[in-house]
Amino acid sequence: MKIITTIKEMQQEVKQLKNNQLSIGYVPTMGYLHEGHAALIDEARKNNDKVVISIFVNPLQFGPNEDFDAYPRDIDRDERIAKEHGVDFIFYPSVEEMYPRGLSVSLSVTDRTEVLCGKSRPGHFDGVVTVLTKLFHIIQPDRAYFGLKDAQQVAVVDGLITDYHFPLELIPIPTVREEDGLAKSSRNVRLTSSEREEAPQIYKTLLHAQELIKAGERDTISLVERLKEKLANSITGTIDYLEILSYPELRKLELAEGKVIIAVAVFYQKVRLIDNIILEVPRP
Amino acid sequence: MKIITTIKEMQQEVKQLKNNQLSIGYVPTMGYLHEGHAALIDEARKNNDKVVISIFVNPLQFGPNEDFDAYPRDIDRDERIAKEHGVDFIFYPSVEEMYPRGLSVSLSVTDRTEVLCGKSRPGHFDGVVTVLTKLFHIIQPDRAYFGLKDAQQVAVVDGLITDYHFPLELIPIPTVREEDGLAKSSRNVRLTSSEREEAPQIYKTLLHAQELIKAGERDTISLVERLKEKLANSITGTIDYLEILSYPELRKLELAEGKVIIAVAVFYQKVRLIDNIILEVPRP
Repeated sequence: MKIITTIKEMQQEVKQLKNNQLSIGYVPTMGYLHEGHAALIDEARKNNDKVVISIFVNPLQFGPNEDFDAYPRDIDRDERIAKEHGVDFIFYPSVEEMYPRGLSVSLSVTDRTEVLCGKSRPGHFDGVVTVLTKLFHIIQPDRAYFGLKDAQQVAVVDGLITDYHFPLELIPIPTVREEDGLAKSSRNVRLTSSEREEAPQIYKTLLHAQELIKAGERDTISLVERLKEKLANSITGTIDYLEILSYPELRKLELAEGKVIIAVAVFYQKVRLIDNIILEVPRP
Repeated sequence: MKIITTIKEMQQEVKQLKNNQLSIGYVPTMGYLHEGHAALIDEARKNNDKVVISIFVNPLQFGPNEDFDAYPRDIDRDERIAKEHGVDFIFYPSVEEMYPRGLSVSLSVTDRTEVLCGKSRPGHFDGVVTVLTKLFHIIQPDRAYFGLKDAQQVAVVDGLITDYHFPLELIPIPTVREEDGLAKSSRNVRLTSSEREEAPQIYKTLLHAQELIKAGERDTISLVERLKEKLANSITGTIDYLEILSYPELRKLELAEGKVIIAVAVFYQKVRLIDNIILEVPRP
């Protein structure tokens, strides 16, 4: 496994892989790898000749009051995990390497951002598509793997790839969970022990939503109201949003029908957690 | 030579070229080909296994009061010229094919647009980088050829490619001129015969600027003033701009020193013409 810190060197390695007609599976990460990332890497390992991951905490996708500085980092641990899972290259650039000066062209997401995390994190997805456009061009993957925990990110990146014809395939991978149901996240380490104890209630609420819908409940306003109440009563954190939308368009729905996402975000003292489930609800 | 109208078919052809390790030279055009385009194609022909040109009058880069509908088109003639110059593929999509719906991510040029054509054509370069991002991904060229007549476009595209690490090389090609000095342009056919007769004064003014600078004149304010006066007195058209800037940064200069561009645009009744020269002026 090679660790590469400059764009130029990464480009040279990619060129050589291309010359040898080797396919590239790519997993973009912000590091502090967990089983969720490992699932993406394992999937990439299965279907590509070479696996590249990037580790880059992208300042552009953090708001001024967000946790860029506090975002957990541990490159030695990441290196070990990546090696164990058969990664061939870690692309690990500095902020200075990725953003040496202002950009002469800016990217803005104009669709699917007025809901969920887009609403509470203005500019977040602009930062995501900006860094991914750079990374996709540097790494030139055949397939890029994204976790469905960030379902809105998957939808936004799907729009970027489709609208601009990036020559790569987006592979969404289901959320990996702890035994008690909490979605794996690099940010979970920032929970206090009592927060960690109650946090599985988030996923329990999503499962409850699933049951209600399976039982025939369709009205999204009443569903959201009941679910919010249930969640608020079972946690000390503050609900940022709980929404039921079409997927992947992320449009508001009166009735939970077709492919729908139930997504939630909760603020804890030092961290904001997100989770979601995506359901196929038969239309009448 | 193949003419291809769908993105999907173009992607399949490109995939096959890549599988066969053939290099691709690419010339983006809006059609109505002239010797300027031919010079780009000839250069692409020399240095690549396969040559692709696109013919697409991109509505996004025309303002509401500009000449999108009146822009000259003649695909049969273009086909003949392309064939004569050894083009392998013409990518000739419809507007509907390129823009089937709104884009979920938008691109804006944030640098080098407050001068020259950017100033008088708001949104123009946003349209240029948007369509080129799509075309670069569809055609995946090793080298893309651009004429220096649109020197600001070359500078903006250079920014796009550099900042976002597109895996291709930009090759700028000097302006091709008529015998009397007028820069070749698809739009020249829209000049009246008397306008066509006086239009070479535009290039004469640029040559005069070059002489003045060679003779030691450096003050850009006084140079611009004298050149504007000279040009205004020799044509019936209206000067849109005449500027002396650093190249490729396109920054304002007090003194014409270093690499500078002298660029001019003139409005005629039915058409706006642009021209420029780029000089290396020794610093004291």
